[in-house]
Amino acid sequence: MATTPQRRFAFGRADEMTHPDSMRATLQEFISTFIFVFAGEGSILALNKMYGGASIGASGLVMVALAHAFSLFVAVAIALNVSGGHVNPAVTFGTLVAGRATLMRATLYWVAQLLGAVVASLLLRFTTNGMRPIGFTVAHGVSDWHALVLEAVMTFGLVYTVFATAIDPKRGSLGTIAPLAIGFTVGAFMLMGGPFDGAAMNPARAFGPALVGWRWGHHWVYWLGPFIGAGIAGGVYEFGIIQNEPPRTHQPLSPEDY
Amino acid sequence: MATTPQRRFAFGRADEMTHPDSMRATLQEFISTFIFVFAGEGSILALNKMYGGASIGASGLVMVALAHAFSLFVAVAIALNVSGGHVNPAVTFGTLVAGRATLMRATLYWVAQLLGAVVASLLLRFTTNGMRPIGFTVAHGVSDWHALVLEAVMTFGLVYTVFATAIDPKRGSLGTIAPLAIGFTVGAFMLMGGPFDGAAMNPARAFGPALVGWRWGHHWVYWLGPFIGAGIAGGVYEFGIIQNEPPRTHQPLSPEDY
Amino acid sequence: MATTPQRRFAFGRADEMTHPDSMRATLQEFISTFIFVFAGEGSILALNKMYGGASIGASGLVMVALAHAFSLFVAVAIALNVSGGHVNPAVTFGTLVAGRATLMRATLYWVAQLLGAVVASLLLRFTTNGMRPIGFTVAHGVSDWHALVLEAVMTFGLVYTVFATAIDPKRGSLGTIAPLAIGFTVGAFMLMGGPFDGAAMNPARAFGPALVGWRWGHHWVYWLGPFIGAGIAGGVYEFGIIQNEPPRTHQPLSPEDY
Amino acid sequence: MATTPQRRFAFGRADEMTHPDSMRATLQEFISTFIFVFAGEGSILALNKMYGGASIGASGLVMVALAHAFSLFVAVAIALNVSGGHVNPAVTFGTLVAGRATLMRATLYWVAQLLGAVVASLLLRFTTNGMRPIGFTVAHGVSDWHALVLEAVMTFGLVYTVFATAIDPKRGSLGTIAPLAIGFTVGAFMLMGGPFDGAAMNPARAFGPALVGWRWGHHWVYWLGPFIGAGIAGGVYEFGIIQNEPPRTHQPLSPEDY
Repeated sequence: MATTPQRRFAFGRADEMTHPDSMRATLQEFISTFIFVFAGEGSILALNKMYGGASIGASGLVMVALAHAFSLFVAVAIALNVSGGHVNPAVTFGTLVAGRATLMRATLYWVAQLLGAVVASLLLRFTTNGMRPIGFTVAHGVSDWHALVLEAVMTFGLVYTVFATAIDPKRGSLGTIAPLAIGFTVGAFMLMGGPFDGAAMNPARAFGPALVGWRWGHHWVYWLGPFIGAGIAGGVYEFGIIQNEPPRTHQPLSPEDY
Repeated sequence: MATTPQRRFAFGRADEMTHPDSMRATLQEFISTFIFVFAGEGSILALNKMYGGASIGASGLVMVALAHAFSLFVAVAIALNVSGGHVNPAVTFGTLVAGRATLMRATLYWVAQLLGAVVASLLLRFTTNGMRPIGFTVAHGVSDWHALVLEAVMTFGLVYTVFATAIDPKRGSLGTIAPLAIGFTVGAFMLMGGPFDGAAMNPARAFGPALVGWRWGHHWVYWLGPFIGAGIAGGVYEFGIIQNEPPRTHQPLSPEDY
Repeated sequence: MATTPQRRFAFGRADEMTHPDSMRATLQEFISTFIFVFAGEGSILALNKMYGGASIGASGLVMVALAHAFSLFVAVAIALNVSGGHVNPAVTFGTLVAGRATLMRATLYWVAQLLGAVVASLLLRFTTNGMRPIGFTVAHGVSDWHALVLEAVMTFGLVYTVFATAIDPKRGSLGTIAPLAIGFTVGAFMLMGGPFDGAAMNPARAFGPALVGWRWGHHWVYWLGPFIGAGIAGGVYEFGIIQNEPPRTHQPLSPEDY
Repeated sequence: MATTPQRRFAFGRADEMTHPDSMRATLQEFISTFIFVFAGEGSILALNKMYGGASIGASGLVMVALAHAFSLFVAVAIALNVSGGHVNPAVTFGTLVAGRATLMRATLYWVAQLLGAVVASLLLRFTTNGMRPIGFTVAHGVSDWHALVLEAVMTFGLVYTVFATAIDPKRGSLGTIAPLAIGFTVGAFMLMGGPFDGAAMNPARAFGPALVGWRWGHHWVYWLGPFIGAGIAGGVYEFGIIQNEPPRTHQPLSPEDY
């Protein structure tokens, strides 16, 4: 397959799959997604350990949202320089839509992310002495279609944040706080979407516990919703913001001089 | 209308409204305000989903304050380099008072911010299967005048923080954490003002849910209060701090050598 | 009085009191302490508004600690480049002990900090429709002497952090996160010391509500404890760390190569 | 014993123990671990003060996790430039495995960390008027072996984060947020592991309260688990990531151009 050198869209170089950089990046996506799912899903099991099956309250939601926000911040921070810090198949899909990843690399990342989520769920099952992972479900009174739109909207916000703070070549010093912004986006949306559909925004995060806990109800929502939102965000940011940017020398809108 | 090149106060260039930079900045204000209101108002609906109409407690207030703090941090971060990261009509008013925005740009921003808040409220109504947005109200035992002063004081703190960390040309490395400081200002004040008047500090944040939920009680408080506080903060910081700054070469007060 | 140009210890220049830099810095200390006390003490009143006089629980403590952490972060951030970001008479005392402030400037700061705390407490009383500020007290089962040591230990940690992140000339990129580190020190210690003596670590924070609420029980503890801790921290860091630092060219201990 | 100049593995220089740099770094490890344990263990005592021996709930867990996250962030920040910011015998062990510390320096750090934890626990006992430190224990329904694996997994994540953000010579601007990432890793894992084994990830954090409170049940778990996880993380990152890094000029994987 041919590659375009500038954008490297399409199917990637034939040797990408065994290139040491690809391997390191793929390994990093595995480790980061593992850490994120272990802490995130683990906090839900911790809640269950404390209260049994009682429904979640405000303090429980804060606890789960902080666990996700903090661990995603860390998972992105440790991966940013190695793999770009996706930790999320939807983010990888957004970079694919934007022409910033080859299909081959995206596939490597997807496999690594899903594997990381599954291994984290298995280790959670072991270390909690057999608790069955819970994952995400759509709340009573909310239909799959509402949840689909909700996941799409929230993931749009997440992937837009990834592009603005971690990918945009003009992000400047924003890059320093990119992992924090990405983690706290998930934290904020969990405090909103938690009681409605759990607020996954990440198919790997949903898939690992679903497989190990064998709970597949509404599962398609957590794939299709995030991919729709991520695709829109990647396209809008790449082709609406980055590529239409005026040259730096004429920039009356920077916070310095507006 | 004439413009002064240095400060660009007054009514702006005739072509500003269709200038690509203006359009990008205006779009960004729409998206950022959308994200902030979707997460912020959404967290209040999430609380309602969990507890019905029961009154908010300490853990509920922490939950709502963190949702606002985290999402405003993100909304400002992704907009900082594009639009200056206002996400708030009161902040835009503060920059207008300080002579750092034209009336035309301010008007564009205001329209975008209000639209973003309304669209977020509409999407919340859809994704929650019809929950009526709640917005802000003045608590029992507190008069409109108390709430007016409270909103003015809190917004003064918020806009002062925006000027000190995101606008001041001598902010230095503070700029890196500006979005975090701005978001956490709102978080801190919500933990204080929440039980008294909800702590909006942002007319767009109050307007979107008010329109979609059709609740207009005390609504003027959430416009006049923030505008008073923002006007004072913008004037004090611009003319008291920035323009009276001693030249850099004589700066015995920097933390390095005071 | 004579001043030593290098360290400017002792009584300061005769014109320092009316120097524009001093005035700006003093005004900034007033505004920052005002914001910190308004949000911090306000969060305690908010708790009272929600629960009446019921004793604080874990979620209430988290709420109050976050209000203090977030608002102190902001108060320090907006003051860092103008006044050094003390916002606390004990911090100012620490810099005095370290020879990094003149007695005249310290006095100006102390007056501004106390005034800021008092004005914040007065405005809290107005905007809450007459609620009496609460401030700090020593819990049942803990003596004044225990609380004195507790305040000294916690303030030692706080002022040590101020020196390491905001004052040390070799702090490097740590300076970027200095306001966050300072704010979160107070947050962490409040989550520890709250149920024992409230965890003030700041005489101005204690004084404003004490005056406006007219509650003076144990008040001396919140002056002497922080001053002892701050004096020790300032002395240890200045004379044990900063002045004994090896020259940069010989630094086998940097995290890069240890 | 001979030392290899490049990696300085093995037993260190004969004069390292009395070298001023070693002394400053060792003192810093003592102070940082003191602050961390004082706030962390103190928050558990604060919970006990409020509720007696009642079991911890979601808000209590958030409170304890934030106290640890905030105080570890601060403890690492103030030590980063002086000692590398370990504050944890397991982190020191990880650097030993990676060949980034001599055995002599590691021993100095270990003594300082354990002493800091013990002194903090003693001062907690005094300032709380005699409350007996609690430390960590394995929950009912979880065996020592589950807890051992849990501690190893969580500490793996923590030490991996330390290497990626604070040690990796190519960490770039990530270094600015390294202390925050390290602190929040512990916060996230506490929200997961808290109800199962307390989530220590740090033998010194466990040892101080165990000694002063004289509670030794399951204590070996909190040494062996963290050391296993830290050793694996240090080895994997050092020999899998750092030393296999491609030269900078060929880096198609940076977030700028992937």
